Amino acid sequence: MNARPDAGTGSRGDLLAALARVLPADALLHERADLKPYECDGLTAFRSLPLAVALPRTVAQIEAVLRTCAQHRVPVVARGAGTGLSGGALPLADGVVLGLARLNRILEIDPRNRLARVQPGVTNLAISQAAAPYGLFYAPDPSSQIACTIGGNVAENAGGLHCLKYGLTTHNLLKIDVITIDGERLTFGSDALDAPGYDLLALMTGSEGLLGVVVEVTVKLLPKPQDARLLLAAFASVDAAANAVARIIRAGLVPGGLEMMDRPAIAAVEAYAPCGYPADAQAVLLCELDGVDAEVLEEAAHAEAILREAGADSVRVAVSAEERAAVWSGRKAAFPALGRLAPDYYCIDGSIPRGRLPDVLRGIAALSREYGLAVANVFHAGDGNLHPIILYDAADAGARDRTERLGTAILALCVEAGGSVTGEHGVGVEKLDAMCAQFLAPEIEQFHRIKHAFDPHGLLNPGKAVPTPRRCAEFGRMHVHRGALPFAHLERY
Amino acid sequence: MNARPDAGTGSRGDLLAALARVLPADALLHERADLKPYECDGLTAFRSLPLAVALPRTVAQIEAVLRTCAQHRVPVVARGAGTGLSGGALPLADGVVLGLARLNRILEIDPRNRLARVQPGVTNLAISQAAAPYGLFYAPDPSSQIACTIGGNVAENAGGLHCLKYGLTTHNLLKIDVITIDGERLTFGSDALDAPGYDLLALMTGSEGLLGVVVEVTVKLLPKPQDARLLLAAFASVDAAANAVARIIRAGLVPGGLEMMDRPAIAAVEAYAPCGYPADAQAVLLCELDGVDAEVLEEAAHAEAILREAGADSVRVAVSAEERAAVWSGRKAAFPALGRLAPDYYCIDGSIPRGRLPDVLRGIAALSREYGLAVANVFHAGDGNLHPIILYDAADAGARDRTERLGTAILALCVEAGGSVTGEHGVGVEKLDAMCAQFLAPEIEQFHRIKHAFDPHGLLNPGKAVPTPRRCAEFGRMHVHRGALPFAHLERY
Repeated sequence: MNARPDAGTGSRGDLLAALARVLPADALLHERADLKPYECDGLTAFRSLPLAVALPRTVAQIEAVLRTCAQHRVPVVARGAGTGLSGGALPLADGVVLGLARLNRILEIDPRNRLARVQPGVTNLAISQAAAPYGLFYAPDPSSQIACTIGGNVAENAGGLHCLKYGLTTHNLLKIDVITIDGERLTFGSDALDAPGYDLLALMTGSEGLLGVVVEVTVKLLPKPQDARLLLAAFASVDAAANAVARIIRAGLVPGGLEMMDRPAIAAVEAYAPCGYPADAQAVLLCELDGVDAEVLEEAAHAEAILREAGADSVRVAVSAEERAAVWSGRKAAFPALGRLAPDYYCIDGSIPRGRLPDVLRGIAALSREYGLAVANVFHAGDGNLHPIILYDAADAGARDRTERLGTAILALCVEAGGSVTGEHGVGVEKLDAMCAQFLAPEIEQFHRIKHAFDPHGLLNPGKAVPTPRRCAEFGRMHVHRGALPFAHLERY
Repeated sequence: MNARPDAGTGSRGDLLAALARVLPADALLHERADLKPYECDGLTAFRSLPLAVALPRTVAQIEAVLRTCAQHRVPVVARGAGTGLSGGALPLADGVVLGLARLNRILEIDPRNRLARVQPGVTNLAISQAAAPYGLFYAPDPSSQIACTIGGNVAENAGGLHCLKYGLTTHNLLKIDVITIDGERLTFGSDALDAPGYDLLALMTGSEGLLGVVVEVTVKLLPKPQDARLLLAAFASVDAAANAVARIIRAGLVPGGLEMMDRPAIAAVEAYAPCGYPADAQAVLLCELDGVDAEVLEEAAHAEAILREAGADSVRVAVSAEERAAVWSGRKAAFPALGRLAPDYYCIDGSIPRGRLPDVLRGIAALSREYGLAVANVFHAGDGNLHPIILYDAADAGARDRTERLGTAILALCVEAGGSVTGEHGVGVEKLDAMCAQFLAPEIEQFHRIKHAFDPHGLLNPGKAVPTPRRCAEFGRMHVHRGALPFAHLERY
């Protein structure tokens, strides 16, 4: 159903000629060398050159490109900054990449109604920068926020360090304008509390470019917290740290950020960009409380007491902006630091109910031993959003395949724990099989019916995000899922 | 498209016989006298007797009822407690009412993961009561919360007094189980942060029973705020009160509740159940801050300063739970109190960007004069969710028609202000024309494609929530909308 679009009605030449009629010369790339920078997104293991890249400057040009592709039955892959980690913007060899980076204007900052209206190519950080003079900010902050665009954030339902308190992208949108594959402009959501009709704003969010192309986004802005305190707590075991997270949540505290790093991650950071994390800790928690001054003081004291009761060996409190930045710098350097420990690494993204953190982390450690691959953990503990990082060497025979199988096993563990196969990175091409572990056949079929309701010829980013029923049927023959354990070798956890 | 289901394949007798085969005798009503209590919901102006009422006790019975209705091509209207105000649960004369009130078990309260798993017939309040021993509560609290069911709350995306801080129903759900018209069970959402695939949990929420029947709901539970302070501020004009709301929001305060009542509402309450609201105020604001103690103290002081700067003639602070309950009692008595002022009243539900409160309230006052009908305002000011209450006498010739036209004009004003034709009451049968003012034809058509993706024969609550394209075309011939003013006579505001 989702596999490939209907057969095209003309040649590549016809398509390029048709696109050239609706786009200025500098907005259409088709030479091999020009296409090369678009061959992959952040999931660099997958690469493919598209037929052409369209780089429109106006919404009218986007409408024309989509209409042209629909007429020629050519698939279209929308692309923001290409920072996605699951291959959502991977080109199709017989398709057009629709790059939206040139639509990068901030159309309106409205402090009275606390909203910003922007074009899809505006970067995540640029919104907060434009809102800063009014004491406001845009809350979701994926680690790629300097580069990633709001259009891509909508497509992937991006998260970040502050989701626990401020929610994912879907919780921070008011309205979007979308162009359908037929070139029609639709508006979903409103500037007010709620909009009637089916919630197509939420449906579009996280739909990975399969339903329409977002050309305008109205986001909520929040007042910048006046004050913050950051606690750095060291634990003698991952288990103790995971239990501390559960206690903080149970106590009703909602930290602005609540991150965990385990021993391998701490060691990597201290070797690469030392920032004073306790050398002997098996795990550290970074717990930041933000808000108005009195609240922060009281909540930080409460959190500190909980961390000590939960067995923290030490708790350091960073108060000034400089001190906090220094403590955060270790967390932010974790990925490059881990990159120095092994030739390659693979970052997994799964989520679980927070109460299951201790068991699932034990399960990951056991899988790491079983597969003979080191795993470091640096993740959004407060959300239950795991990022196990598998360290491997692609030059070793079989290591890559073993890494992929370990990744799949970790995601299966997340599903078993009542969680899901993505936290914030999306499905793209990376997790099509994992989707088969997450959903039953009738649910996958319902997804395809939704796709068909927007894009009956399957031209928008086909083959991504939702596996075909056939793929899941084949997957199911190899693995039992839901109700039984998805992978026989996991039975012992 | 949405109008009526395909022609049935048998008689009423055949259908009843088929339903009797899948339901125990006490779970199927078909005598006229037994059907009578189901002839309307909270929108009592619309009444209709269904063919039959099914009152299943198990999910298997629900599946069987839906499958039977699908086979007989008979429409099905799901019903919780029937407290909805837009006619969403109005029976169809040729259809079955599927009452879900008997599925009223709380399946699980999980304090560790802060969630509750319940059947659809559990009342809103019962969830908070079951969670109370753990210091937790379920946040959305529509004023019908003693009676209304969580299944109905999901169908209507219910709100309440605390939406500003805690969100609508859609922001407080983790997972739902749904039965399709074909009797298939699907799960959307997960117990973790996020679920992959299209966000069908959000799509189902607020879909007014048109896409599927919710049979299990997992909601988020929140820690009960430790402390609260309620400010009662009196203003010499509605304008001044509306401006104060805008200032509170702009200052970054997020009150647990921020309600406004105008002079007619205050007078009605003081005549009916006096609770000491200032007798000479043209408007009062009730602003409740909740949270941890220090935060509440600081925020209440900040809010009081803003209210005074905004021109409040007086600000009373209620601290103890008893004092706060006394001040809230006036707000809660507002509807019955207004009911004594006129033989009939009609409560409108619309929402607007909060910054537009002053102009829209002025516009409503002007419309009230123009139509010669008194309008009182009691509403969720912090959300921009208006509830203008039109007072009239249905016995007066033409009054009812004039009331309806005034209501439509008020909603048009909301749309013009960038808002929407519902805040929290849904569309049902009441606001089908208003939907035509809110949406353009391609958006309405997209809604129908979504409906078709779940329910190709149009058997689930047909004729509700989404108008037919034909109805909107006829509406459009009478009124211009979006881009121009929807109602010619509003041009002067």
